[in-house]
Amino acid sequence: MATMRALRKTSAAKGLSLETVPVPVIGPGDALVRVKAASICGTDLHIYGWDRWSQGRIKPPLTLGHEFCGVVEQVGEEVTAVKAGDFVSAEMHVNCGHCHQCRLGEAHICQNLKIIGIDQDGAFAEFVRIPGANIWKLDPAIPEHYGAILDPLGNAVHTVLAGAIAGQTVLVTGCGPIGLMSIAVAKACGSSTVFATETNEHRREMARRMGADHALNPADDAVKKILAATDGTGVDVLLEMSGHPVAIQQGFKSLRAGGRASLLGIPTENVALDLVQDVIFKGATVQGIYGRRMYETWVQMTALLKAGRVNLEPLFGERVGLENFEGAFAKLQNGLAGKILMYPNGVKK
Amino acid sequence: MATMRALRKTSAAKGLSLETVPVPVIGPGDALVRVKAASICGTDLHIYGWDRWSQGRIKPPLTLGHEFCGVVEQVGEEVTAVKAGDFVSAEMHVNCGHCHQCRLGEAHICQNLKIIGIDQDGAFAEFVRIPGANIWKLDPAIPEHYGAILDPLGNAVHTVLAGAIAGQTVLVTGCGPIGLMSIAVAKACGSSTVFATETNEHRREMARRMGADHALNPADDAVKKILAATDGTGVDVLLEMSGHPVAIQQGFKSLRAGGRASLLGIPTENVALDLVQDVIFKGATVQGIYGRRMYETWVQMTALLKAGRVNLEPLFGERVGLENFEGAFAKLQNGLAGKILMYPNGVKK
Amino acid sequence: MATMRALRKTSAAKGLSLETVPVPVIGPGDALVRVKAASICGTDLHIYGWDRWSQGRIKPPLTLGHEFCGVVEQVGEEVTAVKAGDFVSAEMHVNCGHCHQCRLGEAHICQNLKIIGIDQDGAFAEFVRIPGANIWKLDPAIPEHYGAILDPLGNAVHTVLAGAIAGQTVLVTGCGPIGLMSIAVAKACGSSTVFATETNEHRREMARRMGADHALNPADDAVKKILAATDGTGVDVLLEMSGHPVAIQQGFKSLRAGGRASLLGIPTENVALDLVQDVIFKGATVQGIYGRRMYETWVQMTALLKAGRVNLEPLFGERVGLENFEGAFAKLQNGLAGKILMYPNGVKK
Amino acid sequence: MATMRALRKTSAAKGLSLETVPVPVIGPGDALVRVKAASICGTDLHIYGWDRWSQGRIKPPLTLGHEFCGVVEQVGEEVTAVKAGDFVSAEMHVNCGHCHQCRLGEAHICQNLKIIGIDQDGAFAEFVRIPGANIWKLDPAIPEHYGAILDPLGNAVHTVLAGAIAGQTVLVTGCGPIGLMSIAVAKACGSSTVFATETNEHRREMARRMGADHALNPADDAVKKILAATDGTGVDVLLEMSGHPVAIQQGFKSLRAGGRASLLGIPTENVALDLVQDVIFKGATVQGIYGRRMYETWVQMTALLKAGRVNLEPLFGERVGLENFEGAFAKLQNGLAGKILMYPNGVKK
Repeated sequence: MATMRALRKTSAAKGLSLETVPVPVIGPGDALVRVKAASICGTDLHIYGWDRWSQGRIKPPLTLGHEFCGVVEQVGEEVTAVKAGDFVSAEMHVNCGHCHQCRLGEAHICQNLKIIGIDQDGAFAEFVRIPGANIWKLDPAIPEHYGAILDPLGNAVHTVLAGAIAGQTVLVTGCGPIGLMSIAVAKACGSSTVFATETNEHRREMARRMGADHALNPADDAVKKILAATDGTGVDVLLEMSGHPVAIQQGFKSLRAGGRASLLGIPTENVALDLVQDVIFKGATVQGIYGRRMYETWVQMTALLKAGRVNLEPLFGERVGLENFEGAFAKLQNGLAGKILMYPNGVKK
Repeated sequence: MATMRALRKTSAAKGLSLETVPVPVIGPGDALVRVKAASICGTDLHIYGWDRWSQGRIKPPLTLGHEFCGVVEQVGEEVTAVKAGDFVSAEMHVNCGHCHQCRLGEAHICQNLKIIGIDQDGAFAEFVRIPGANIWKLDPAIPEHYGAILDPLGNAVHTVLAGAIAGQTVLVTGCGPIGLMSIAVAKACGSSTVFATETNEHRREMARRMGADHALNPADDAVKKILAATDGTGVDVLLEMSGHPVAIQQGFKSLRAGGRASLLGIPTENVALDLVQDVIFKGATVQGIYGRRMYETWVQMTALLKAGRVNLEPLFGERVGLENFEGAFAKLQNGLAGKILMYPNGVKK
Repeated sequence: MATMRALRKTSAAKGLSLETVPVPVIGPGDALVRVKAASICGTDLHIYGWDRWSQGRIKPPLTLGHEFCGVVEQVGEEVTAVKAGDFVSAEMHVNCGHCHQCRLGEAHICQNLKIIGIDQDGAFAEFVRIPGANIWKLDPAIPEHYGAILDPLGNAVHTVLAGAIAGQTVLVTGCGPIGLMSIAVAKACGSSTVFATETNEHRREMARRMGADHALNPADDAVKKILAATDGTGVDVLLEMSGHPVAIQQGFKSLRAGGRASLLGIPTENVALDLVQDVIFKGATVQGIYGRRMYETWVQMTALLKAGRVNLEPLFGERVGLENFEGAFAKLQNGLAGKILMYPNGVKK
Repeated sequence: MATMRALRKTSAAKGLSLETVPVPVIGPGDALVRVKAASICGTDLHIYGWDRWSQGRIKPPLTLGHEFCGVVEQVGEEVTAVKAGDFVSAEMHVNCGHCHQCRLGEAHICQNLKIIGIDQDGAFAEFVRIPGANIWKLDPAIPEHYGAILDPLGNAVHTVLAGAIAGQTVLVTGCGPIGLMSIAVAKACGSSTVFATETNEHRREMARRMGADHALNPADDAVKKILAATDGTGVDVLLEMSGHPVAIQQGFKSLRAGGRASLLGIPTENVALDLVQDVIFKGATVQGIYGRRMYETWVQMTALLKAGRVNLEPLFGERVGLENFEGAFAKLQNGLAGKILMYPNGVKK
């Protein structure tokens, strides 16, 4: 039986280990993908650290990893949309196909979602097994390192394009990787002035490099400055990427009457909202954003990338082999804004 | 100078008084309307009671009243859309026409709104002055008592039609007059199962008469019952009409992933929301609803009424002259669900 | 090997024959359904008559029938959404799952559609094989004869709900079965005045029974009457159900500036349109409507039926066994407006 | 009485003449604007040439000109949104405010539209009178020559943003000024591949300079090439700018199933459409586009310009004084693609 290296949670405790495990066996509807590049997500850090959420959700042993690209190695007999040799990424949310939401074309909020890399073995390995329907064939014009981060880029594109964006003023609250990507995507899609708020000065500088017109410190009268810069009206669109209660509240105070607030960041507890002034009297629209639309977001995102309309280069940090995972996880824990890529089959410089 | 009777707040204190005042003088862009029937709104009760909001907003002396219908008595020279003798109602929110929202077709959330009956003299009088653009000509097929409550009916229609409604399951939280109207409107527009929650048994009974399939007591496992009746999925649409934190929270817990929550009820303080479970992971859309769209909602509402598609008869209570205002206000303070009509120019039985 | 009776096109010529054939063998992803009631579509008449379209599309031998309901007899091992004994209908368009349209949630216009009853054996038989994803489980509250016509009812619901309908004035051009159903659906979803045009007086009478406010003869100044009844403005919504060039042109002339024209009827040749006056200067929206949205339309349609909001009783004609197909097809060829149901497993009166 | 120079149609015959006429007198709701730059539209060429349309619509004497910018000279007492000295342009369609379309927020297709420069004196003069509601204040960051062409740019923005554009493949048929502007606007709003078709090679070259990825000759297998470049699927969006029947038909043949066709170009006669294959079976959406949304398009357009997101420099040709109008009109008659600006108060180089 063929074996491979995989980065795994092997027991209910902090940490990960690099193991040798069998190459996945695929069924008639699956594809086996040789992983070229995989990217570490904040969720992976939570699982590494074995926080409360991880303890409730993760069942070791499990191979992590849900952001990646690779090349199809082999397909099951029912798979017709891709073939061996194709350059691909994948949507890692696997939907049931028959719940109310699946029937309505809202597969990304399926009642029975399973996530590859969370609920079953993922892509921090030489090979990963993917259901045929979840494989996304990539145009060879898309660079490999971009292919590895389509999962978070999809979050950003889903959020930005959840409403009108062309000619709109935008506020992005929180400049982690997805917030930073949102800035570039909003600009590529015709937004006018883009404001960003972020406590970390290094990330504010990244925000400017991604295209933000104003990168503000929330503690430094950010709401007042945004209102002043919009003639007292407020921004048309709020993209909330932090999950922080203060950012959420500042975001709503900066939003114009009739504006759109798209919330992707995950607060750790309930948030007290001034519903009357910030939502009801404003006639605002608030959207919860989860994952990526399956597969409308993938179509939009890959069209934008293929056309060269989104520059994500400032985001990329180190590139390492699986064996150097400890250093990579440590860097990210320390607050690096960008994305570190792991190359299970050998680092491509 | 011609005079008339008017129900007015004459000093910064509780209560109202029936006064004799001059008939309003109209400008070239105004219409003078002889009031047939006017309806008492919850806001009028607040002003009567002189609560904190009233103290900050109302500048006595002021004639109250913003729900009414009547007949045009006279028009200014620039007014061409109506003429003397026309049966009319009016949108009492007067917008500025040049702010960002007005330019975007969102006049109902204009930055410089003034409300007739709140910020200037209203319709609890024999005559009321209305800007020509705000007059709404009514088809004679619409009954007079319906014409008197188009303001709150417009709130209901605005809320119901702020998203898809045909074939949707609906929860209305709070069965005051607007909540009750929403039930009838939702049914008229093709909603399937309509749930209503309300603490007052008399109002629950009204809800059933308006067309609710299930009128539930919030204290009696309402969320559990709604989820059970929807195969665990939850309702497609939440129409929040109470402003009560428990109702809001129950509403969100009853909402399906991907559902719409339209909030019209006014909470008296901040509300703690479980944004992660109730909005973000659900991919929900939350809408603040204010007033009525100017004038899309009026078009929709009067088309529904003219076609006889909405039965509001259960809502109507007593009909009185202006001189009997004290009794009318007292009844409503005591929690009557329906609408009391006042007839400044003589009661029509 | 088990056998069954089936109504089939056995050779490339006019007519059909009742044959005995093997019961379909199902794969792991299929369901076998025992057909309760099936309905004859206009397309079936074309295939019977072996017109030019049929000659290009149909490959005999073929069992006809794509409108039906039944009870699941048996399911393949991969099918989890239904089980033996469930009351079901089915979407007979089978999509590929991987073309651009499928990826965008527009499976009903998949580039590789196959239709059961057209491209593979259909439901005019005791049993029919259906892919698991296409099965639609029905609430037992939905009557069996309604379950047999969900395919055309879905066309009607798709057309009516392709845009705003509540409070809208509507013109339905053409009162065949789908046109008639559209009238009832539009009314159930809150449309105000509904006009219908139809050359056949019997069908105009049916239109009135289905809820049309005005059923007009196109030859009798229909456009002028519609404009007069709408203050010269025209209707908000045109539902084109005839495919006849005159009806299409009258429809556009009756449509208001800014209105919606949803086209379902199939013209037999190119149609000359006054694009400037009827579409461009009007700022009109014209929608091509094909099939039913998979499966949003099914959700909406069955919710409307379950809630008892659409009365289709006037549409139903004779109910016959398969053996009486010749009489049924002859009646429909002669222009009967309603639907004839066939009961392959015995007529239910 | 003050006088000014104005370019006018003085009699029902070909040609224009430069006349001295009184400066317009403004009413209480008007503004008087000193014209800085005005641009010649194709409609002006029709009026110059006195074609059949002009003969039916234009009532001499009339000052032409409906594309311009300038500085407010004086305002009537009711005008509060602008003041003397403000840099402005204007929407030249004057709507009635009370027809069905005006009430629905569709003022651009008002039933009683009047156009300044067509139905009353326009901007080819030192001064022009504009109703206060139609004045559009410009940010000083917008260049003067851009300010002069907001009318056609608004057509382009209205067409491009009439549906989704980010990440969409686009075909622009016809590369006159508005077609060329559409290319730049689509690119600025995130469209991916943009195709353009145009018979004139000079205009195809302009199309490439405006950002088109492929500028094709319609006679040279354009449809086949577009389909080949989109994997046989067709483009997501058709922007029809030519009014030519062949372009319209090619456009529809190039459109994907489920795509959007937005029609702005004006055909001179009826167009035969293959409604079945091109609209109905495709599930396409066809939109008639007229004018600019009042004033949503103005908000979007000026936000895009202020943010520097649309480069229109390649479009601009000669800049002349009013006295040189004959040469300017002659050049445009001969097919120049770009825009010639006239400076009634002195040419700014």
